[in-house]
Amino acid sequence: MRIDRIALADLACGAAFLGSGGGGDPYHNQLLGEARIDRRGPFELVTLDDLADDALVAPSGWIGAPTVSIEKLPNGREAVDGLRRLERIAGRKVDAVLPIEIGGGNGLAPLLAAAEMGIPVVDADGMARAFPESQMAIFSIHGLSACPSVLTACCGSAVTIETHDNYAHERIARQVSIALGGDAHMVEYPLTGRQAKDHAVPGTISAAMAIGAAIRNARAMGEDPFAALCVALRQTGLYSFAGTLFDGKIVDLERETRGGFAMGRIAIERFDGTSRMDLEFQNENLIARRDGVVCAMVPDIITIMDRETADSITTDRLKYGQRVKVVGAAAPAVLREERALGFVGPAAFGFAEAYVPIETLNGWEGK
Amino acid sequence: MRIDRIALADLACGAAFLGSGGGGDPYHNQLLGEARIDRRGPFELVTLDDLADDALVAPSGWIGAPTVSIEKLPNGREAVDGLRRLERIAGRKVDAVLPIEIGGGNGLAPLLAAAEMGIPVVDADGMARAFPESQMAIFSIHGLSACPSVLTACCGSAVTIETHDNYAHERIARQVSIALGGDAHMVEYPLTGRQAKDHAVPGTISAAMAIGAAIRNARAMGEDPFAALCVALRQTGLYSFAGTLFDGKIVDLERETRGGFAMGRIAIERFDGTSRMDLEFQNENLIARRDGVVCAMVPDIITIMDRETADSITTDRLKYGQRVKVVGAAAPAVLREERALGFVGPAAFGFAEAYVPIETLNGWEGK
Repeated sequence: MRIDRIALADLACGAAFLGSGGGGDPYHNQLLGEARIDRRGPFELVTLDDLADDALVAPSGWIGAPTVSIEKLPNGREAVDGLRRLERIAGRKVDAVLPIEIGGGNGLAPLLAAAEMGIPVVDADGMARAFPESQMAIFSIHGLSACPSVLTACCGSAVTIETHDNYAHERIARQVSIALGGDAHMVEYPLTGRQAKDHAVPGTISAAMAIGAAIRNARAMGEDPFAALCVALRQTGLYSFAGTLFDGKIVDLERETRGGFAMGRIAIERFDGTSRMDLEFQNENLIARRDGVVCAMVPDIITIMDRETADSITTDRLKYGQRVKVVGAAAPAVLREERALGFVGPAAFGFAEAYVPIETLNGWEGK
Repeated sequence: MRIDRIALADLACGAAFLGSGGGGDPYHNQLLGEARIDRRGPFELVTLDDLADDALVAPSGWIGAPTVSIEKLPNGREAVDGLRRLERIAGRKVDAVLPIEIGGGNGLAPLLAAAEMGIPVVDADGMARAFPESQMAIFSIHGLSACPSVLTACCGSAVTIETHDNYAHERIARQVSIALGGDAHMVEYPLTGRQAKDHAVPGTISAAMAIGAAIRNARAMGEDPFAALCVALRQTGLYSFAGTLFDGKIVDLERETRGGFAMGRIAIERFDGTSRMDLEFQNENLIARRDGVVCAMVPDIITIMDRETADSITTDRLKYGQRVKVVGAAAPAVLREERALGFVGPAAFGFAEAYVPIETLNGWEGK
């Protein structure tokens, strides 16, 4: 499959939604991607089935606070630098890359690195959305090691981490990302082709493109892009339920860059003032309470979107007064298994509430 | 030269003094060293002249807060693990190690690693005392790179850093040491034999042993160990002036582990209450003010010692009520050059005062 300018814009749109507010605003990577397409032609996408079992596959993306990444631009060499260092450690070439998370700018970043290396990107990812911490990847949930991982930054610095504990890895990588200025590129969870086939979430790049295309088409046809989004999500076969959770105006926003993350809370009020939604985020939107009652929680997707344009608004772009819809979507089944919830469920983020699926909380099941 | 049990005890005593309060309490490394000597015989020490110009020499030591290191004991494999990783990166064997700093426990740690590897320790170091930050090493002052460096910790984790900027390296390594639990072993500034000869401070291990022996002999002879210490310091040819700066009791102590360092202040009062000394430390004692007037400052050595036993008290062991003498010694000339003062002078630690040599401040020059 090939990704041209239109498909790239669709991918940026879909990835921004799947980011659940995180993964970074895709805008900058979209611009870099367009420049690359104009110069050298479309990006190449392969499927997991195209991989040899003994291939070396490198999941990659950016680690850090999105609030930093929108101001601290990359030098453009970080990803290739990291992949080349992994090759030196592994003593062999990297055969393909895939996004560690499809959400936000991280859904696009590997395209650029792969094109630079002359290798394909695999239509799959490690989170089926975006999560703030490294050990939340499906590879970690399934017992694979994040290491060796390689962090690289715009200053030319590189840090290689080797540890058997994916939580320790996250702690170290987070501190390194802070020392590197607040965000850094990271190649992690190096996989064999066999492991990628067994554990990566297949088809998430094309799913993001389909979601983006549905929104684009609805806009062009004068139809409701939110309705089109929800249909497209279900049609991916990955996100079985979706719907609008709230419609209103941002009336309060607390956001700070703390511990290497963008942390904060958002309050949204209905225009008639009769209802209120409160959200909490750690890079990604984690939990939404409507009039004090939880209506969506991790690992389900919670994305704040411009209510006119249906553009997803990443947590680093939220502003007081924005008129928004909050859209929720069911996480893929693989993230809802009991072993997965220990890594990415509400308790993993310190919430007391037990996980309840978004379709149950919102009565979408009968639909 | 060989280091037996007595020489090891002398080294621990002398290194504790040269640490200027930092480098960590040598006690634990002394115990490990004694066990090693009992089992396998004395340690081997070589001189810089014994090194081939193309040898690979690895300066090493522990990075972190001494307040942590006295409670978080090593697993004993960290140093060898780090040196083996450097060998893998360099594609060759490490031929010799040397202490990155002679001060405190870091003056002894390389003995253990070298013995385990079956390679010698070089009678030299990178600081001629101890300093809290990596870029304060003489190798950095002279323009050499700290990288590749390798941090290893008791959990088995390893982190490799590559950057061209020694200040960035310190920032990254510090954050990594925090993520690794507050202290970690670090191999850094890998040198050729030629570079070691050109830049390391020669003879600092034997200088520390001579200082320790002088104190031991004075105690045995019933003589004043402080007088013996000052004579021995001058006789090394490295520390040209030394003397007692204050005699009294610790009446106030603030100490916290912050930013990966042991940070704090100490107040000492004369027994008759007529005079007071205030010291500030960042792992190492940095500046001493007597009745509000500076009487010693980095890079000169400021060590607080038990006034009865002449045991040096590292900053992690300070306690309210200790009866102490504060002894100062002139730093070697190489640390007082203008280019060095930019890295290790008062301004490098944020003090407004310009550097004035300890012998000038205390009128020792005529002596």
